[in-house]
Amino acid sequence: MKRQVLGIDIGGTNLRGAIVTNDGTIAKKKDIPSEAKKGINKLIDNLANFIDQFEKNEPDAIGIGVAGIINKKTGILTQAPNIAKVNNFPIQKKLTQKLKSKIPLILENDSNSAAFGEYLLGAGREANSFVMLTLGTGLGGGIIINGEIWRGEDGMAGEIGHIIVNPDGPKCSCGNSGCLESYVSGEALKRMVKEDPELKKTLKDVPKDDIPQALMKLANDGDQKAITTWNQFGKWLGIGITSLTNLLNIDMAIIGGGISNAWHLFINETESEIQKRGLRGPIERLKVRKSILGDDAGILGVSYLAFKYLESNSTNQNLIL
Amino acid sequence: MKRQVLGIDIGGTNLRGAIVTNDGTIAKKKDIPSEAKKGINKLIDNLANFIDQFEKNEPDAIGIGVAGIINKKTGILTQAPNIAKVNNFPIQKKLTQKLKSKIPLILENDSNSAAFGEYLLGAGREANSFVMLTLGTGLGGGIIINGEIWRGEDGMAGEIGHIIVNPDGPKCSCGNSGCLESYVSGEALKRMVKEDPELKKTLKDVPKDDIPQALMKLANDGDQKAITTWNQFGKWLGIGITSLTNLLNIDMAIIGGGISNAWHLFINETESEIQKRGLRGPIERLKVRKSILGDDAGILGVSYLAFKYLESNSTNQNLIL
Repeated sequence: MKRQVLGIDIGGTNLRGAIVTNDGTIAKKKDIPSEAKKGINKLIDNLANFIDQFEKNEPDAIGIGVAGIINKKTGILTQAPNIAKVNNFPIQKKLTQKLKSKIPLILENDSNSAAFGEYLLGAGREANSFVMLTLGTGLGGGIIINGEIWRGEDGMAGEIGHIIVNPDGPKCSCGNSGCLESYVSGEALKRMVKEDPELKKTLKDVPKDDIPQALMKLANDGDQKAITTWNQFGKWLGIGITSLTNLLNIDMAIIGGGISNAWHLFINETESEIQKRGLRGPIERLKVRKSILGDDAGILGVSYLAFKYLESNSTNQNLIL
Repeated sequence: MKRQVLGIDIGGTNLRGAIVTNDGTIAKKKDIPSEAKKGINKLIDNLANFIDQFEKNEPDAIGIGVAGIINKKTGILTQAPNIAKVNNFPIQKKLTQKLKSKIPLILENDSNSAAFGEYLLGAGREANSFVMLTLGTGLGGGIIINGEIWRGEDGMAGEIGHIIVNPDGPKCSCGNSGCLESYVSGEALKRMVKEDPELKKTLKDVPKDDIPQALMKLANDGDQKAITTWNQFGKWLGIGITSLTNLLNIDMAIIGGGISNAWHLFINETESEIQKRGLRGPIERLKVRKSILGDDAGILGVSYLAFKYLESNSTNQNLIL
């Protein structure tokens, strides 16, 4: 049966959406700023307006990937370091109240969504188990075990960005210090630029959110300081992947998110760190791969979770997690 | 049907075995030194002799928990940092050749065995998912997800001791630096004593392998340096558990192994580190519990894996992984 859903990805920077058909086609792609820094209420307003723009496409369901930790049992967004003012926000309830349309609404962590997308249609098609690291404003994570998202007991699992790689390291957006995210993310790149007088000077006129992109260009143009910064980024990414591989003995680590476009600038250092540090057995199996679906991974993944929901349910509940 | 198996636990220090009945009874408990430091061949000799001592009890199968990483597909012990001279050792083949008895032989990582034991009969009975940390010579780990051991793609998963908590930290037995094991294990305690002039002096006549025990006594007697050392140990344990909880959103972390007897000396620091560092949602659920089965967790767990094997197989193969 042909179905179509609205797939949305809520990031720290943008809201992105598209109509996805269950043959994998993506259409009517749009994006607007999420204004997540202005707080969750502003973001929910933006989101509701954004969803209304797709109303005439008559989707059978809406799938939303959220850059935050959702308790799947209560529908509460407990923590979302890159959205301001989130502290146990009842996203399920609030969003239902806002929306005109009452079609099923499926919420999932954005990186879990991306991982599921890559598993079905992308780099993870041949893997049975993998971790997905989404390099964006923060560092998102998703774990696929035996072909299923491992969501943990409350739907909060997969927070790869918040494994601790250096307890005395930089302050992380979650409140802790030395999380992997504080070394491997857009925010981490901004910090590294700020801490380097030379890079700070070179990039002083670049708007903060464009720094990762500018640093990529700088390194591509041969700037040694920029190249070293990407090497450092790659090293820490390798340290994180080594821990995950030693722990989970997975087939693959998939690297996605906007910053994965700097792949050629960090991957050598990442691979060499894994080889240097990993347990022999687990790293022999491991493949490190770039996301195939790119920016669409999250939207496709959460759309397929919505299809999965529609297939297993004939009733039309208002909101489903 | 009443069955009995021989359950064996191979540690860095001892070989321990017992006859286990499928009502959970343990009998004929024995232990001998493993002499693991003298190399894997010596250990296999000791093991074969040890097994022969139980021959008259006519076990239906033998379950062996090994302190090392076993590739379940090839029967090769790829790495065992606390057994000397292990480098892709074909333990399955070698052990079969040595043994007089040809009953089924089930091999499993010792910490996976302990985790499975705790899941069925111990602290994990009410959990759906948990991590088990076995504090012995090294730091063993096991992961239970939806009531099953997560073995990974080659049977090597669960190496909690080898997540990296400080990349520039002390050299680990696996060759890497700053693994959790290099801060949280018997070997780590020995290093900490060696690095502290005062403790080094106080414990200078204590045989190396007895240092954890002696340090426990010292702290119980009120020695401030010893108390601080246990606090440090507890802190790093908390850092490791925080990473696991953020990553896996599990119900529980179970602490076992000989050194868990120092529970009262480290647990406050562990709990406070988790509270300080963890993501709100996942740590709200987490319970940190001491192993209930203690030293018997591994033997019971691997024995129940043997029962599970016997139930699902009527043929009598020589060796089963």
